[in-house]
Amino acid sequence: MLKLVFRAGISKRAYSAKAVKLTVETYPNLQRGDYGTLEESDLTRFRSILGDSSVFVDDIEGYNEDQMRKYRGQSQVVLKPKTTSQVSEIVKHCNDRKLAICPQGGNTGLVGGSVPVFDEVVVSLSGMSQIRSFDETSGILKVDAGCILESTDQFLAEKGYIFPLDLGAKGSCQIGGNVATNAGGLRLLRYGSLHGSVLGIEAVLPDGTVFDSMHSLRKDNTGYDLKQLFIGSEGTLGIITGVSVLCPARPKAVNVAFLGVESYEAVQDTFSKAKRELSEILSAFEFMDRESQVVNKKFLKAPHPLAEGSDEIPEYPFYILIETSGSNKEHDDAKLEQFLETSMEDGTILDGTVSQDEAQTRTLWAWREGISEASQIEGGVYKYDVSLPLSKLYDLVIAARERLREANLIGETDEYPVVDPVGYGHVGDGNLHLNVCVRRYTKEVEKVLEPFIYEWISQHHGSISAEHGLGFQKKNYVHYSKSDVEIAMMKDLKRHYDPNGILNPYKYI
Amino acid sequence: MLKLVFRAGISKRAYSAKAVKLTVETYPNLQRGDYGTLEESDLTRFRSILGDSSVFVDDIEGYNEDQMRKYRGQSQVVLKPKTTSQVSEIVKHCNDRKLAICPQGGNTGLVGGSVPVFDEVVVSLSGMSQIRSFDETSGILKVDAGCILESTDQFLAEKGYIFPLDLGAKGSCQIGGNVATNAGGLRLLRYGSLHGSVLGIEAVLPDGTVFDSMHSLRKDNTGYDLKQLFIGSEGTLGIITGVSVLCPARPKAVNVAFLGVESYEAVQDTFSKAKRELSEILSAFEFMDRESQVVNKKFLKAPHPLAEGSDEIPEYPFYILIETSGSNKEHDDAKLEQFLETSMEDGTILDGTVSQDEAQTRTLWAWREGISEASQIEGGVYKYDVSLPLSKLYDLVIAARERLREANLIGETDEYPVVDPVGYGHVGDGNLHLNVCVRRYTKEVEKVLEPFIYEWISQHHGSISAEHGLGFQKKNYVHYSKSDVEIAMMKDLKRHYDPNGILNPYKYI
Repeated sequence: MLKLVFRAGISKRAYSAKAVKLTVETYPNLQRGDYGTLEESDLTRFRSILGDSSVFVDDIEGYNEDQMRKYRGQSQVVLKPKTTSQVSEIVKHCNDRKLAICPQGGNTGLVGGSVPVFDEVVVSLSGMSQIRSFDETSGILKVDAGCILESTDQFLAEKGYIFPLDLGAKGSCQIGGNVATNAGGLRLLRYGSLHGSVLGIEAVLPDGTVFDSMHSLRKDNTGYDLKQLFIGSEGTLGIITGVSVLCPARPKAVNVAFLGVESYEAVQDTFSKAKRELSEILSAFEFMDRESQVVNKKFLKAPHPLAEGSDEIPEYPFYILIETSGSNKEHDDAKLEQFLETSMEDGTILDGTVSQDEAQTRTLWAWREGISEASQIEGGVYKYDVSLPLSKLYDLVIAARERLREANLIGETDEYPVVDPVGYGHVGDGNLHLNVCVRRYTKEVEKVLEPFIYEWISQHHGSISAEHGLGFQKKNYVHYSKSDVEIAMMKDLKRHYDPNGILNPYKYI
Repeated sequence: MLKLVFRAGISKRAYSAKAVKLTVETYPNLQRGDYGTLEESDLTRFRSILGDSSVFVDDIEGYNEDQMRKYRGQSQVVLKPKTTSQVSEIVKHCNDRKLAICPQGGNTGLVGGSVPVFDEVVVSLSGMSQIRSFDETSGILKVDAGCILESTDQFLAEKGYIFPLDLGAKGSCQIGGNVATNAGGLRLLRYGSLHGSVLGIEAVLPDGTVFDSMHSLRKDNTGYDLKQLFIGSEGTLGIITGVSVLCPARPKAVNVAFLGVESYEAVQDTFSKAKRELSEILSAFEFMDRESQVVNKKFLKAPHPLAEGSDEIPEYPFYILIETSGSNKEHDDAKLEQFLETSMEDGTILDGTVSQDEAQTRTLWAWREGISEASQIEGGVYKYDVSLPLSKLYDLVIAARERLREANLIGETDEYPVVDPVGYGHVGDGNLHLNVCVRRYTKEVEKVLEPFIYEWISQHHGSISAEHGLGFQKKNYVHYSKSDVEIAMMKDLKRHYDPNGILNPYKYI
């Protein structure tokens, strides 16, 4: 009956593989919280709130497993409300009964935050997917939380607007989930964080109260900006049911350049220059190391953009993808051309290509966007999503490789669990993705990498989670990024708003 | 000994006028809270924390009066800490003794939020004015709360960067105060709100705890974004002592055009077109009605930009100021020229002038920025700073004038208290400034305007405070913009963090 939710970045092959290990088996010391246990009378109540066809108890594996296939919960029921008041009634009932809840959007999270750990009731927002309103003068959009990012952006494209967020999982992630996890992604450099562009939120609080703050004003200084608390709270303070967001005008001209440079220093120099010279039209500045291109080539099975007829990847140690977006193609072309010419002349850029049409643009982006999925092609991947001061950003990849070598875990043959670490990410945001590509998940590799990587980040004043969030995976590592005072305040806030701890337990804080 | 703080927008004349009425005289029903009373032993303690030279008990009128000359408190002591730990010790002592505190930045607020009401201890941040650090690659700036906005922006200008906020009071307002009041201002259209650009905050909590969250990462998803609570909390949850902010590259080219149009519809049409055609270089879109220009002319005593040799203001009912900022002067000029040409051709714009140099740019801006000060030239002004849907924005000015006429309060001679209401503001942000220029403050005018204006805004789903905040003036009107659930949550939050209610009482919520 129930179809598996399509998840971007997961090939069908993955589903035919053996079952994902239960989270409680992987982490045998985990204790179930003192919550109520689902009874037939609860199901009866859920059915009376939602109707029989929105309460699912069979074929719900897809809601228990995360897309990384690292975590699997044991929820017995998935609820798909269609209205905010249904969400409210569900939550109120669960709070009265002390039943734990796992709110779920598109289930594309990368830190185990969107799947249950024990037997939490899954509240899926996928039944709430209506666009509520759009104002064509102001660009203010109001949507249900379950709207898919990509289809919402397509709706906006027809109106000459763009959603101020873009990320790899756009085909399945939901806007409510994006806001709940404060998703960053590819357009942050240009359009800023969701803390700036989200104008209003509707959320159901842990006691079932509907917090209706769906404002549509760009400026409103009448009291604490409470909606901000929900942005990035990963479903632990409330279930987001609606979002009001300010959307910018869609750029008329988009250019993409793919460049080869000789060092990480050249990456930084090119970024500084791009900020000065491309300035207001710069919409993305991404970097990739050569190792990431090697891995991606196995996945894309296509010639590299700078290969010039050869089947090899050129020897440049670093690659850069620059995107410009503007309102005048001629002006943008002139700025980019001037920028590339002077950078080639002074030797900062060694090689490069510029897209001539939309198809080429997509191809160039694939050599950046494909890395995430490509990283698991040999069996699995340990993903680290970190913020660091720009000058230190790549040193972490070098340090990780060195440490794996010392532990004799990395090599070209099957006896070594690790294939290679690869580094890439959003230079413009100081955001590195370090993917340690492995043939298999082993405790040994995990122990060599953690807490080493978190300690390294902490020493260099970075963040252990730039955009992926905390979820289950990083719950116990927050102290590497936040002080005792900050952590105490967070725990206090959670206790204050959710005294029974029913919302998304075992995670976050 | 103690100099009066210079306040932008207030002429010296104002200070020679008669004393400002005490707030408790104007509002005789106000009750002092159940707070401790300042004793000699408290002063001794303050002197031991700060040293004698940072504790002021004489000549402190400037700290008791607001810049609108509408509110005057009766504080007996002004403290000027130089370090965060001094602020912490002061607050801890006050909390132990239940002494109320009024935190104060540049005291340029417009809603009576920055001056005491009764005998609160004034904690002025003006002694903390060091730039802590600036990263020239990332543009991330860390400052003490007491840094003056304008001098900070001058510091950034030398480095090729710009502060993402600009407002009329920049010469005296402080960055801590800007953040505490979530100031909006002139650059919001381009650089977004402080909720997006502030990366970190250091604040002293009501019990004296130092909340050190001075992060400098563009992306950090490790827990609740607690700093957001302090942005716009007007000193009621903590005293901001430090700010970390992301600064954009300073534009190399700035153009300003000043235009005359025939209707408010033409203002909206021009805005829609500017968003499409000037797009990424559009940095300000301001409108002014003719009445605002009449008032401003009395103040500026200069020929109007569109007067063409005459001493009259042209008959256009609405004026527009457009600013573009970009990285390539030639491209920007071409875009603006094309925009203006087609708009003149199709009749949307009737007249206009474009600045040729920096001096002209400043002159054109003066016809927008001067209105605020000009509005009180006849004696006083009732200021309303509101957000409304764009199509309804100017209707409020018409409705207010109509209502004042009906009450027979508006006229050209001295018997009428009201001179005229004028309307202007940030169209790009849906933010109207309605200034009712008066010859004198009277209860009659106030009663005709309030709550009428707030009700009108509420009916049209606007905000009663777009950027000025709540302060003392709008504390009791929050329900016109926020729901019962929102207000209950705000009150709960205040109680939770400040159970003794010592921080900035009688205001906000």
